[in-house]
Amino acid sequence: MHNCEKTNMKRTYALIMAGGYGERLWPLSTKERPKQFLKLIGERTMLQETVHRIAPLVSLESTYVVVSREHVKLVLEQLPVLPSKNVIIEPMGRGTAPCIGLASLRLQQRDPEGVMFVLPADHVIKDVERFLKLLRAAAMIAQQGTHLVTLGIPPRNPATGYGYIRAEARQVGGPTDVFSAFKVKRFTEKPDRETAERFLSEGDYYWNSGMFIWRSDAILREIETHMSALYEGLMQIKLHLGTPHEQDVIEEIYRDQESISIDYGVMEKSPRVLVLPTGDIGWSDVGNWSVLADVLKTDVDGNVIQAQHQGIDTYNNVIVQELGKAGTRWVMTLGVSDLVIVDTTDVLLVMTKERAQDVKELMRRYAEHAG
Amino acid sequence: MHNCEKTNMKRTYALIMAGGYGERLWPLSTKERPKQFLKLIGERTMLQETVHRIAPLVSLESTYVVVSREHVKLVLEQLPVLPSKNVIIEPMGRGTAPCIGLASLRLQQRDPEGVMFVLPADHVIKDVERFLKLLRAAAMIAQQGTHLVTLGIPPRNPATGYGYIRAEARQVGGPTDVFSAFKVKRFTEKPDRETAERFLSEGDYYWNSGMFIWRSDAILREIETHMSALYEGLMQIKLHLGTPHEQDVIEEIYRDQESISIDYGVMEKSPRVLVLPTGDIGWSDVGNWSVLADVLKTDVDGNVIQAQHQGIDTYNNVIVQELGKAGTRWVMTLGVSDLVIVDTTDVLLVMTKERAQDVKELMRRYAEHAG
Repeated sequence: MHNCEKTNMKRTYALIMAGGYGERLWPLSTKERPKQFLKLIGERTMLQETVHRIAPLVSLESTYVVVSREHVKLVLEQLPVLPSKNVIIEPMGRGTAPCIGLASLRLQQRDPEGVMFVLPADHVIKDVERFLKLLRAAAMIAQQGTHLVTLGIPPRNPATGYGYIRAEARQVGGPTDVFSAFKVKRFTEKPDRETAERFLSEGDYYWNSGMFIWRSDAILREIETHMSALYEGLMQIKLHLGTPHEQDVIEEIYRDQESISIDYGVMEKSPRVLVLPTGDIGWSDVGNWSVLADVLKTDVDGNVIQAQHQGIDTYNNVIVQELGKAGTRWVMTLGVSDLVIVDTTDVLLVMTKERAQDVKELMRRYAEHAG
Repeated sequence: MHNCEKTNMKRTYALIMAGGYGERLWPLSTKERPKQFLKLIGERTMLQETVHRIAPLVSLESTYVVVSREHVKLVLEQLPVLPSKNVIIEPMGRGTAPCIGLASLRLQQRDPEGVMFVLPADHVIKDVERFLKLLRAAAMIAQQGTHLVTLGIPPRNPATGYGYIRAEARQVGGPTDVFSAFKVKRFTEKPDRETAERFLSEGDYYWNSGMFIWRSDAILREIETHMSALYEGLMQIKLHLGTPHEQDVIEEIYRDQESISIDYGVMEKSPRVLVLPTGDIGWSDVGNWSVLADVLKTDVDGNVIQAQHQGIDTYNNVIVQELGKAGTRWVMTLGVSDLVIVDTTDVLLVMTKERAQDVKELMRRYAEHAG
């Protein structure tokens, strides 16, 4: 029995987006094992945590995981109870739009009016209780089939690494008094510092969390309206779903798609988007090494340490050792501050927190020389 | 045939002091393999380099190496042609005075008026030609049996890590016009910064290199005068030299000795000390990680790198990997300056150059927790 029936909700499904490469957490996150498959925060991998977090709302039977072919094995290992038919394999990365379209097709066949929670597999959310309340509230709105709901994170600082959502001041009557949803006035791609600062001082701006709630028919309708090329491709795939040609057709269609995010393809264009501000749920996309301090416990000296470590006069650093290194090897620091030190088998990374955003450049340099 | 006979010099011998632990180069230098046994600079270990450097003046047959028992094996491995009877084993560390006394006893038996070059095994000297000329000049002075000669390094900066020698202005007539020896007015133990700065501005000060040249009978006479307890011990040892009890007696005598340097025990007190300023011979005791840049090649960004490394915006760092790590592991840096990064199997050390002097404290911390 589905627990949402109690509140007269439509059935809810989860689409876990596990296709990323987590490049800015290199060298712990690698192409072979991106961050969503790592135990970065606790005893569970981020993928496991994402699934576990929503367990009160969505069973594994109703959970879909989108992943690239090379990581299918990791998904099945880490979620052994997940029905293997719920693993949606992307033949290649083409942004979130084709991947969401493909998953929506699948869901359509199963439950035409089902509500989907679209959730990245690599986010940290500390206040799970509040998060689940938000998802329920969003599902109540989405189940009417009219709106696409996106979760908006109240910005903690003028970060330039996120897209911003400008909410209209007028609240949209929602089914709950605890949370308020707003019509979206405008999406803004990652702004520069000055613009971000202006957003914060103006108010009514939220970080685009990349978490969406909608009915599968609703998002497909919007894809039809705003991304006709993708929609046509999806309709071709639909003809072959469940046939032996399915994966071949998907690959063919994918190859021809532009790489495009659902934000850019639909959310920025559709008038049907609502933003549901989350309040403080302790959210982080763990987007780079320097933000780890936001989600992990710091010691009295402001250090985030996941390593066998001893230090003297060591402040506000992030020091992380690959699992399995600890026990055999010590990281010892003296007089250093605001550094990121990552100790893996293949790579020792030392950088300033300030430069954490640029680690991809270093990763490319590594690939050039070590590859 | 001894090549010094050409210049009417007495026979020359070398006493290589290889008993140290090189703690300030931890974690590359360890108790098991201190820095003198490492290939820190080139293809030879520092001990091998020390012996090789003086080969034109002293044969291996005339070279003695003082070492603690646990490192005898390393000496024999690294100097396979050294006669094993030339290895002088210290039962325990008691500073340089007992060890020099012991070696002088041995030399006395062989060549009562032989000239000894007392040389630490862990110094770098870039201008070997000039260094050999200096040793020859010093030997010419020392062979008369009147003076103890010490090499004085012209201070490059007000370092607080060295002892200082104040020379008297008046030159002592030496046997050479190229180098001038001076009577010593005063030895000063490691001064504070202010004092060191004053020394530099006053002039006539030299760093105490710890390299000495004297006749074995001369230094024994001075030990008799200024360190009577040690002298008595040495006389007891002398009675048992070459007997089966030799090592036992040495151990017994050593145990009762104060730990004391020859500088403090003799050089600071004797009126017979001359300092021979070296001029620029590219000397370094490689006393800690931050001075490596003085003796190793720096890249265009001021980095000293002995590692498989790639960096972006990386300036004036010392980055060293344990031999054998390179090839399997990369050190990658981004935006860091003035750091010391040492990557060994057991320890990853990251510290500021500024704090390089304090690494012993960190080493103790490591011993506490990893031991």
